Amino acid sequence: MNQEVLLFEMPIQYFLEIAGTFFFAASGSLALQHKEPDWCGAAFIGFITAIGGGSARDILLGSFPLVWVSDILLIYAILLGIVFAHFAFPLFVRLRKTMLLFDTMGIAFFTIIGTEKALSLGVRPEIAAIMGMFTAVMGGVIRDTLTNEVPVLFRKEIYASACLAGAVCYLLLDFMDLERNSNFLISSGLIVGIRLLSVKYHLSLPKFRNQ
Amino acid sequence: MNQEVLLFEMPIQYFLEIAGTFFFAASGSLALQHKEPDWCGAAFIGFITAIGGGSARDILLGSFPLVWVSDILLIYAILLGIVFAHFAFPLFVRLRKTMLLFDTMGIAFFTIIGTEKALSLGVRPEIAAIMGMFTAVMGGVIRDTLTNEVPVLFRKEIYASACLAGAVCYLLLDFMDLERNSNFLISSGLIVGIRLLSVKYHLSLPKFRNQ
Amino acid sequence: MNQEVLLFEMPIQYFLEIAGTFFFAASGSLALQHKEPDWCGAAFIGFITAIGGGSARDILLGSFPLVWVSDILLIYAILLGIVFAHFAFPLFVRLRKTMLLFDTMGIAFFTIIGTEKALSLGVRPEIAAIMGMFTAVMGGVIRDTLTNEVPVLFRKEIYASACLAGAVCYLLLDFMDLERNSNFLISSGLIVGIRLLSVKYHLSLPKFRNQ
Repeated sequence: MNQEVLLFEMPIQYFLEIAGTFFFAASGSLALQHKEPDWCGAAFIGFITAIGGGSARDILLGSFPLVWVSDILLIYAILLGIVFAHFAFPLFVRLRKTMLLFDTMGIAFFTIIGTEKALSLGVRPEIAAIMGMFTAVMGGVIRDTLTNEVPVLFRKEIYASACLAGAVCYLLLDFMDLERNSNFLISSGLIVGIRLLSVKYHLSLPKFRNQ
Repeated sequence: MNQEVLLFEMPIQYFLEIAGTFFFAASGSLALQHKEPDWCGAAFIGFITAIGGGSARDILLGSFPLVWVSDILLIYAILLGIVFAHFAFPLFVRLRKTMLLFDTMGIAFFTIIGTEKALSLGVRPEIAAIMGMFTAVMGGVIRDTLTNEVPVLFRKEIYASACLAGAVCYLLLDFMDLERNSNFLISSGLIVGIRLLSVKYHLSLPKFRNQ
Repeated sequence: MNQEVLLFEMPIQYFLEIAGTFFFAASGSLALQHKEPDWCGAAFIGFITAIGGGSARDILLGSFPLVWVSDILLIYAILLGIVFAHFAFPLFVRLRKTMLLFDTMGIAFFTIIGTEKALSLGVRPEIAAIMGMFTAVMGGVIRDTLTNEVPVLFRKEIYASACLAGAVCYLLLDFMDLERNSNFLISSGLIVGIRLLSVKYHLSLPKFRNQ
């Protein structure tokens, strides 16, 4: 990869990571509606939701320093996301479908970014796919665990499995030497597509055990 | 330790670790009976249960890469365990006593393996005992925490304390220069014995506070 | 800092850390009153409460070995704290106000110690403040999560935000070159003051969302 491509690519991916972090913090800080948290509680949960997935990935991979520890911009994106959520809450309610789209795009980007980071640290593709999925869902899992909610993994719609499918798709196309940017678009698009269709048509995976 | 002994020993211990991981994944994926998880949710919990204890130990000890990140066979053992649990569930129910034996043997092996790994990283014996116990029980603790169940630590029968007793026994016999394989058998046997007796005779430790 | 100052300072700070660990273990082991834990369950929770905050900080900062892994005295302080809690429980109840003071002092010391440790590892002040707050509150958060209680963050009184205020105060005064021991006293005093006043006058932060 030559320097010019790098200059062209980095800002886009970096912008997506900042935007995803902003959005995760916003949705996390609003997750506790009926617990009526104060500002500090809401900010804490927004923060954990935003950094949880990436931190889980990097800790499991032993990759230090964590991204948000070394890049202060992510902290400010989180703070902005929390303040934004406070003021924009009525907007969130009115634009529920737009918000679902943003949320799904955030999950899709985080999956592919996480898969790429794991690959770049030299792990096998199977591990990279798991790490990509963790990057996307662990923030929500930790959020639900800390707040005693039903974990996002056991709700109806297809969620973690869409991320896993996207990560596997990315790895296959990467193995077939597809150019990276196209791969990013196709694989994250697959995640967005699976998730939106499953929400629209109430699709879900088969139960693990039939009664 | 000469090379021949190593060749003889490694496969057995390695086989036990693979078998224990397989079994932890199977029992973990069945842990959520009344939450009716889909395949993805069940697999996620099976995965976390299988890797949770060893990962907690290695992260607390700062020992990277984690075992399952560097050894792909463990991932396949987990996948097999989850598929096995799906098909063998009726068997699980019918052979409940056999399953309790397997579960207890898994916990016993994980305790000793975890204690040995911590020792090999140069920590003090007290820490090694705690890490051995963590290796055995943290998978279940994380599983129960993620799924909002009553944590395994607060159920009736003796559990974590049996692991701790086995780890301390291992360390004492090791200090007395007992040969390693005999020590492994005696110490893990102690864990199995304490646990099975406590289940059979409903033994439990004294309450922390009398009412 | 010359050697004599170091000799003078270390024991005090080290004593505070040991004392704080002792007290966190004691209060943690008593946290599960209506779950009637046995000795092992109570000790496990006491242990997690005592080491949780510092471990979370050090893992997030990638600073290994963890303090309690390399310093066995902390393990014995924890064990003593658990035994003390068992025998001194009636005392705890009778001296509730004294205990609140001890608890608050423990949180205040842990905040400043955590902030200093993070700074010494070279992170930015914003991250150091977050890490200081984490050091103080994460033990309680993990305790409440493992035991399915309402997380300490969502209870009424000001708690995490008092720690954050103290950490920010420390960083500001440090930036203004205030001598370290005075800074330690002022900043931890601020935390104690905010927390005690908020308990006495039932002060709380504004809700994140008005109904």
